[in-house]
This record gives sequence, structure tokens and C-alpha cells, in this order.
Amino acid sequence: MSDSKDINIYMDRLGSLAKNASRELSLASEAQKNKALHSIGKKIDSKRHAILKENIKDLEEAKKKDIGDALVDRLELNEARIDSMISGLEVVSELPDPVGEVTDLDATPSGIRVSKMRVPLGVVGIIYESRPNVTADAAALCLKSGNSCILRGGSEAILSNKIIWDCLQEGLEESGLSKDIIQLVETTDREAVKTLLHMDKWVDVIIPRGGKGLVKLISEESRVPVIKHLDGICHVYVDEDALLNKAVDIVLNAKTYRFGICGAMETLLLHRNIATDILPQLLERYESEGVELRGCEETVKVINVKKANDEDWATEYLAPVLSIKIVKDLAEAIGHINTYGSNHTDSIVTENNEKVQSFFNQVDSSSVMHNLPTCWADGFEYGLGAEVGISTDKIHARGPVGLEGLTSQKFIVKGNSELRGS
Amino acid sequence: MSDSKDINIYMDRLGSLAKNASRELSLASEAQKNKALHSIGKKIDSKRHAILKENIKDLEEAKKKDIGDALVDRLELNEARIDSMISGLEVVSELPDPVGEVTDLDATPSGIRVSKMRVPLGVVGIIYESRPNVTADAAALCLKSGNSCILRGGSEAILSNKIIWDCLQEGLEESGLSKDIIQLVETTDREAVKTLLHMDKWVDVIIPRGGKGLVKLISEESRVPVIKHLDGICHVYVDEDALLNKAVDIVLNAKTYRFGICGAMETLLLHRNIATDILPQLLERYESEGVELRGCEETVKVINVKKANDEDWATEYLAPVLSIKIVKDLAEAIGHINTYGSNHTDSIVTENNEKVQSFFNQVDSSSVMHNLPTCWADGFEYGLGAEVGISTDKIHARGPVGLEGLTSQKFIVKGNSELRGS
Repeated sequence: MSDSKDINIYMDRLGSLAKNASRELSLASEAQKNKALHSIGKKIDSKRHAILKENIKDLEEAKKKDIGDALVDRLELNEARIDSMISGLEVVSELPDPVGEVTDLDATPSGIRVSKMRVPLGVVGIIYESRPNVTADAAALCLKSGNSCILRGGSEAILSNKIIWDCLQEGLEESGLSKDIIQLVETTDREAVKTLLHMDKWVDVIIPRGGKGLVKLISEESRVPVIKHLDGICHVYVDEDALLNKAVDIVLNAKTYRFGICGAMETLLLHRNIATDILPQLLERYESEGVELRGCEETVKVINVKKANDEDWATEYLAPVLSIKIVKDLAEAIGHINTYGSNHTDSIVTENNEKVQSFFNQVDSSSVMHNLPTCWADGFEYGLGAEVGISTDKIHARGPVGLEGLTSQKFIVKGNSELRGS
Repeated sequence: MSDSKDINIYMDRLGSLAKNASRELSLASEAQKNKALHSIGKKIDSKRHAILKENIKDLEEAKKKDIGDALVDRLELNEARIDSMISGLEVVSELPDPVGEVTDLDATPSGIRVSKMRVPLGVVGIIYESRPNVTADAAALCLKSGNSCILRGGSEAILSNKIIWDCLQEGLEESGLSKDIIQLVETTDREAVKTLLHMDKWVDVIIPRGGKGLVKLISEESRVPVIKHLDGICHVYVDEDALLNKAVDIVLNAKTYRFGICGAMETLLLHRNIATDILPQLLERYESEGVELRGCEETVKVINVKKANDEDWATEYLAPVLSIKIVKDLAEAIGHINTYGSNHTDSIVTENNEKVQSFFNQVDSSSVMHNLPTCWADGFEYGLGAEVGISTDKIHARGPVGLEGLTSQKFIVKGNSELRGS
């Protein structure tokens, strides 16, 4: 399928099948959807050897192309990762179904009765890289929230994705649901992504999962609304009213729990009155964890580390590197976060509740935290059960996006032949 | 300001002022915001003659350019329209402030405490045509919901908009709020709109208000998320289980309450078993209201009207024209609506509750109604107080967008030094 007209026809068919199936799915009961999730889990379990075999083929191709260790690691499936795909399906089946929830609104001037009903979005397009487990994870969340999905994985994972998709379709059919609910883009041609991003006729929302480059490209090209996650430049501000031993533990964990997650702290802000006390101890602890420190002008006078430049404040390292800035007060800390941050997750460490409130009100991020490391930013940890991503957008879903973020509300208006204007 | 570089600098300054002011505004109390709304109302009242004078200049220019009666009508201000601007400000001041509302979430696995807090979006860009009262209406909704706004009205209304903007700024200053909260784009150069649509650094959401052409252009160009309203192709389906006298009144009102509103019915769907009974009476009533009917093949066998073609089903007439289609059952009606409709507002007339439920579940529109004319689709009539527009999108706000639609929720996470992974 190298011809772009063929790809348009192919994608249009996928879109139309997904949209039609979404109408049927929006009527499915919670029990039916859970049954499908169980069936899919069983299929994956019974086909695990075939899945691993296909995955090895993908890995061999990938290694030939020298795509880098990190990508190979994400691409690789093993028994444990297959187990976690299956348990992920179980977790989603246990989450409450958001669809159908009705909220009555206040009385209206005319007496017509208005409510809001939670409904699926319709068709969700998921564009992702490397990790084949996303095929099952994302499809499960879409299914439970009543949405059809069109999955477009990375070309390097195409064989793994196809066999997982087989399991998804067989599970759907076994439970009496249409297999059209879950579509996989079987061509690796990039033209297919471009077409998907312009199918606002069929697709209601696009969720990209991958590096900043991919997400940026997608949101610039897309005519379909995008729920996106760009940067995670997260800060912890240690106030002068913090308990310093608590603070040291928190900022250590914020950086070192995992370097590669979007909730990892990238810049530490220290109040001037406690900076000199705390910095030598921090240097020692971070060094023992292999973290390179880069400090502002004032910081490098206290500890012997590299000087940070303006670019450091705006960088998501996703690596064992941390920039440190000394600030004169809470206002300067908030100003720094709102200037250089990415509206993701920022935390204040203090025992002063007034300052907590100011921080919560003024820091313009999807999550604001108190006396916690930023690495807690995660849908599962927030009690949402699972997440399809963390949004740094402000409209629709902000922060970790769970099942509710894959739904919308429509107005239900009941009357008794009231006429307007009479 | 004909140079596009100058315009970029000018717009960038507007954006940065609006963003900074939004931080201050997000901390303003409800009382302070209401005080500003009152002050603005008083300013408009005291300057009403100057406003009318500027409006006359705009009208004279517009008439010279021969922009058409409809546009001139929308552009015109008079004492009554100024009164309604002022009373609109009062209505908004009486609406409950959505900002700051905190919802606690369920317990989390680790014991960290998660809530959601309702917060303003930040900066709202409003792009509109002709009607200068939008300047005050939209600014009031943004102000009450804690958002700065950047207003870009039509070039034909520039003098009217500027003097209303003077009132807005004076009202803000008098109540101790920054006048930077409300920005007006003072140049009529179209380059300014293009720049605004790319200022995702400063602007959080764009709301276009105007014709389909304008809205389409904006949503195609914008890098900022858009809350948009495209078509209002609304349907009423009269079921075989309807009370026919009720049904006639409802479908008359749905079309004739006002031809030019987006909630006006454009296609009437009739169940085959009642069509022959009801059509002659409908023809007579619609003709007496000057409504031209266009019927499907079956309809034209019963009454003597023009035949509808495929284009009719997909047209938002916004005029005294109505297409009529006879269907064999509820499923065909739902299929027609989901194929040709615009996901705006659709209504079923029936006494059969099971059919109502099917219609509510399966019709994919922002409002679904029972025994009501579609012309009720309106934020004020829904009890939302006022609306900034009606969204036909599915993500974020769907249907009439009131104050809540101009806000978002952020996560508030409190802990006691819990560390992750330990």
C-alpha cells in the first residue's frame, strides 16, 4: 500500500467500521464489557508463546536497524510483561463504568428538566511508539469507557502488535461484541498517520503516547482534538518553614524514584534561609545516587557543582541530572515555576499552611502537591485505577487521564410539550 | 500597523499582559469580581450616548460598504440593546462562582490524599463578528470565571467595540482589578487573528463566535485548543406512539420560534404510520407561517411540496425552509440523525419511554430532548445562567458552555512525606 489514495481508502474504511461499532458498544452493559476484557486476557494468556515468537522477530529487525538500547528495551516482551498486560486487563475490568451516570441540574426558568448523562466520546485514535503492551492497555481503557479505538503503533513493533490485536479481536467476538470495536492500522506507512489525524468525520479524539517530538508533530498536524502530554519539567520548592530532614527525603525521592518518568523532579528550588544548611547534605546524597547537580550562581558558592545556565531551567532531563536554584521567597519560587515549568506537577515542602494555599492557588500546573515528591503523579496512585496518559493541556482532562477522561457529558432535556416564546 | 512583524510584537505584548493579569485575577474573590461587573455596568450606562455615537459611525461605514441588512442589523446598538448589555452583566454577577470548588477523590493505594480543585483556564481568546454587545457579554463571563480575555471583534464594529472596551477597563480599575484582564485587539488587520491562533504560549483556549466559514477557518488554523460550534442541523422525530396534537405544536415551534438560531429544526422525521394523518395539517400550519416544505419521495405523494434532494438532509437552512422525511421506525430515524445531523440537538416526540431511552442512548448529539422543540437548546434556558456559546465538540464542554466550561480542574495532592517505591 504505497499509494496515498489507497491508504486514504483503507483508513476511511477503518474509521467507518470503528464509528459504526462505537454505536453498538455505547449500548453494551458493564457486564458485557468486563466479559470481553476477561476473554481478551485469556486469549493473550493462551497465545503467549506465539506472542513472544512474533516479538522476537520484531526485536531482530530492530537490532539490525540499530535503533538504540532504550528503544529495544521498550519493544521487548517477556513472560513478566505479558503477565502485567493480563493483570492490567483485570484491573480495568474492576474499575467502575463511568458511562450512563446521570447528574440532574438545577431547576430551569421554564420548567423543562435538564440533566447531564456521561457518554463515551465515540472513536479514540491512539498513536504510540515501541511498547507493544500499549496495544492491550489502551484498547482495554477504550473498551471499558465504551469507545471504539484505532491503534497505530510503531513500525518496529508491528508483528507484536498484530498478534496482540488478534487476541483482542478474538476476545471481543467470544463475548458477543463486534471485533470492529478495536482497529489496528496494519500498514506502517506514515501516510496512514497523516490520514488518521484528518479523519474528524470518524475520530473524536487523538491521544499520542510517545516522545515530545512525536506529540508536537501530531498536535500541529491534527484536525481532530488531541489530548496530549508534552513536557514534565517538575519542581519541588523547599520553603524556609520546611522540616529539613523530611525535605531531604522528599527531594531525593522526587529525583531518584525513576529518572525517566514525566513526574521526576528536574529543578529543585531552595529558600535562601535554609539553602546553606541543606546543600552539603543534598550534594552527598545525590552524588551517592549518581545524580549530577547544576546550580545557580548562589548555589555554586555553597557547593562545588557545575553552573546551571538558562537552558537548564527549561530542560526536561529525564536523566540523573538536577538543576538547583536558590530563591528569596515563595513568590520567586512560584514565578520561576510559572515561567520555566510545563504545567505538569509541582510540589511545596513546608509546615506553613498559608504558603501551601498560595502555592496551590498560584502554581498553574495540572497537579500541585504538598510535602510529597512529584514522582507520585500517576493515575493509578491517584486512585483513578489506570491512565491512558497524563495531559498537560487545560481543556477537557487535565493531569492523569483515566476512564472519565475518555467520556463526555451530553444534555438530556425532558419536557411536557413546553413551547418556547409562548 | 501593516507590517506582520509589528503585529507579532503587538499581539505578543497583549498575550503577555493578559497572562500576567490572569494570575492576579485567579486570586480575586467572588465579591471583587462582582464589584467589577457592577462598575462596568455603571460605566456603560453613563456612556450610553457616546457608545451610540460611535456605533453610528460604524453603521455609516458599514452601509457604505454595502455589507447586507442582516449584518447591519447585528451591528446596530440602540437603547434597548445597551440595556440588555447592562442587565447581562447583572445576570453574570448573580451566577455562582465556579472557581475554587474542591472535590475529594476516593482513597488512594498509598494513602496520599487527592482532590480536584476548579480553576480558571487562564487566557481565553474570543473571535467574533459584527455584534458589539459580545464585547461586554463575553468579557463578563471570562471575568466571572477568573479568566483574562483577548477580544477580537469584527472590523466593521471596531469603534463600538473600542468604546465598550473603555467602559470595561474603567470598571476594572475602579474596582481595584488590573485593566490588563480584558484586552481588545485594536488593529483590524487579519494578520492579528493568525497571530492570536498561534499564541499557545499565552492563550489557553480560543472561542470563535460567528458563521460556519469563520469557525472552520479558525479551527483549521489554530494551534490553541478551540471550543467551537459548527452546524446546528437539528431534527425532531415524531414517533407512531406520539400524541399527534402535541406533536404538531412541538414541530411548529421547533421551526418557527426563530429561523436563524442554531437550535431551529431543519429536518422533520415522521413515522410512516402517522405521516399521512399529520402531513396535511402540518402543510397548512407551516404555509401560514411562510415556511417552505421539501419532502422525501414518500412525503411528496401525500402533500404537494417540492422534492428534497440529498443535499437538503445535510443543510442548515437557518431560514423558513424545512425538509421532511418519512421513516419506517425509530432505528431509521436514529440512523438518519447520526448520518446527516451535526451532533447539536435532536428531539423525539413519543409517549413510549423505552423508545425515549433508546433515542437518548443512541443519538450522538450534545443535547437530546423528549417531547420538546429543539429551539430550547440554550444555556440560559438550561439554567446555566448565560452561555459563551454552544459547543458541537465532544471533548471538554459539550452543548451550551457556561461559566463551568471556562474552567478546568487541577489535582491537589497532600501527603505526609510519603516516598514512592519504598
